[in-house]
Amino acid sequence: MTKNDYYSQENHGPYSLFDLGDFNLEEGGIIKNCQLAYSTFGSLNSKKDNAILVSTWYSGTSKIMEQVYVGVERAINPNKYFVIIVNQIGNGLSSSPDKVKNFAVASFPKVRIGDDVRAQHTLVTKYFGLSSLALVVGGSMGAQQTWEWAVKYPDMVKRAAPIAGTAKNTTHDFLFTKTLNEAIMSDPAWDCGAYKNPNAVIDGLRRHADLWSVMGYSTEMFKKELWRDLGFSSAEEFCEGFTQAYFAPMDPNNLLTLAWKWQRGDVSRNTDGDLKQALGRITAKMFVMPINTDMFFPPKDCEDNQKMVTNSELRVIATDWGHLGLFGMDPLYIKQVDQHLHDLLDTPV
Amino acid sequence: MTKNDYYSQENHGPYSLFDLGDFNLEEGGIIKNCQLAYSTFGSLNSKKDNAILVSTWYSGTSKIMEQVYVGVERAINPNKYFVIIVNQIGNGLSSSPDKVKNFAVASFPKVRIGDDVRAQHTLVTKYFGLSSLALVVGGSMGAQQTWEWAVKYPDMVKRAAPIAGTAKNTTHDFLFTKTLNEAIMSDPAWDCGAYKNPNAVIDGLRRHADLWSVMGYSTEMFKKELWRDLGFSSAEEFCEGFTQAYFAPMDPNNLLTLAWKWQRGDVSRNTDGDLKQALGRITAKMFVMPINTDMFFPPKDCEDNQKMVTNSELRVIATDWGHLGLFGMDPLYIKQVDQHLHDLLDTPV
Repeated sequence: MTKNDYYSQENHGPYSLFDLGDFNLEEGGIIKNCQLAYSTFGSLNSKKDNAILVSTWYSGTSKIMEQVYVGVERAINPNKYFVIIVNQIGNGLSSSPDKVKNFAVASFPKVRIGDDVRAQHTLVTKYFGLSSLALVVGGSMGAQQTWEWAVKYPDMVKRAAPIAGTAKNTTHDFLFTKTLNEAIMSDPAWDCGAYKNPNAVIDGLRRHADLWSVMGYSTEMFKKELWRDLGFSSAEEFCEGFTQAYFAPMDPNNLLTLAWKWQRGDVSRNTDGDLKQALGRITAKMFVMPINTDMFFPPKDCEDNQKMVTNSELRVIATDWGHLGLFGMDPLYIKQVDQHLHDLLDTPV
Repeated sequence: MTKNDYYSQENHGPYSLFDLGDFNLEEGGIIKNCQLAYSTFGSLNSKKDNAILVSTWYSGTSKIMEQVYVGVERAINPNKYFVIIVNQIGNGLSSSPDKVKNFAVASFPKVRIGDDVRAQHTLVTKYFGLSSLALVVGGSMGAQQTWEWAVKYPDMVKRAAPIAGTAKNTTHDFLFTKTLNEAIMSDPAWDCGAYKNPNAVIDGLRRHADLWSVMGYSTEMFKKELWRDLGFSSAEEFCEGFTQAYFAPMDPNNLLTLAWKWQRGDVSRNTDGDLKQALGRITAKMFVMPINTDMFFPPKDCEDNQKMVTNSELRVIATDWGHLGLFGMDPLYIKQVDQHLHDLLDTPV
């Protein structure tokens, strides 16, 4: 098995590892010696009430969340808050198909958003000794984890900001994710997940990236040629040099593990399928923050969820960059996110 | 080479064939003994001013246009108009990779929207002896042909109604179509287009259909479970039994020929790349009719084109069915189309 250096401390660290021991999963599997990778910024105050938990999206790690969302002049300010960025299971830093030696690479067990949130809860309560979180925030799959946190542990979550993500995945989003999976799995080099060298699945990863180019940005972004802001001279060069290049070094089975989880994100699993009851459990002050041009977590779907949360506001972020505006390439996106998070953090709870 | 019965007279006829002879293409190729397949309904009046030309979309033939858009109680009424539905080159009825014997199946020449419209012009002027068309109408790629007609032959086209399609394809739409092509071409059975049996490329066609399920309908359609109206009992069953089943019997190289053409639809080729000048040539009374939930020919893109046409109106059609609402599964879509086409046909020119 060829080693994949992409997920190294050099590229994505420094990060620490928290041992969960043998971790039982909702679907019945077990991850032996399960580890959560996390990074922290700032310090916990004496009252232990200044912790912010940041979750990660599909393909993302703590590194990009730090780079795009954390800073001393930002809403998530490490001079003021104790920021914990937790990598979700399967993302290549926490326990993942590509690194857990107890599993054949293709037989990593099915993991759910609820498993991640339970694991993260153990980290913040048992290891950091916290009994409350001033804010839980994340984008896309990170938003799915944010919703789950607010429903599962309402007493702990004081504020919550799911960005560009829903509480219960829609059929349409499920189908989009299915096409991502099929792009990878249809590559003969994927070999039913038994590939020896992840880089061999490059054709599948390239097609997978092209689907992101269609659904991840927006018509307007391409029409306005905003890729020029990132230094590219043609749309084709941007799709290859940015989107394809971003996904190329990743492990296909890691992505498939995350995608399976993404497709089935659903807080109503906590309440026997009753979404209204699940969202009714939320006591956090919540800002639901969809992106106006998002093609698969569209504002309407996020708003439908928001309306079921008592103490909530809909704060739509405007950017032509679509869902992948989450990467922060639009300075106005950053500005809006910070304004909303400032407002939210300034709200007494 | 296995014969593909899908495109037969039994399935898509009755249709007639018009011989264009050796037809020279914009890209420099030639289709030997090029044939246009067409169907007509109703009769030409003595003034020869009641002809309506209907064009076809990607994967579509004259049959579906007849079934969805023509009828004695419809705006396109064969008791009143002489309706000519022309199959575009490459669609399996007109000259296409799967039926032209002069070509290896994989080396059919590149065809452009402009070629189709030139061929159709020959049919309606030389064969039917027409000097004007009361209306040119079509959806999607049929809209691309409609735009091209109005720009290329302004003296002939009295009224025009491009439904869910633009005058110049956008980068975003080009990228979507690229993913359709890649879904087919990544199937090893496609064999660089040299497959002996088109049905062997079933995996590629299935993935291609799944992309349509994501981009062709809309989030709202799936949320409201409108597929129930078509008799399906789950979204999965609908995607397989409707979308996959629709594309499964088609010829992969036919679809690729059409897709190449679709990606490059651009009326500004008539005016050295000046879109405003091209659209400024239009003298037809034009209703531009995008579908409100269309994800790849979105209303905004169609409106941008419409604004450049002097004698035009934007008539947005509302349906949750997205782009594939063109198939007419929503009775309210049919009602709106007919209302708009009635209004347009009633407008003196």
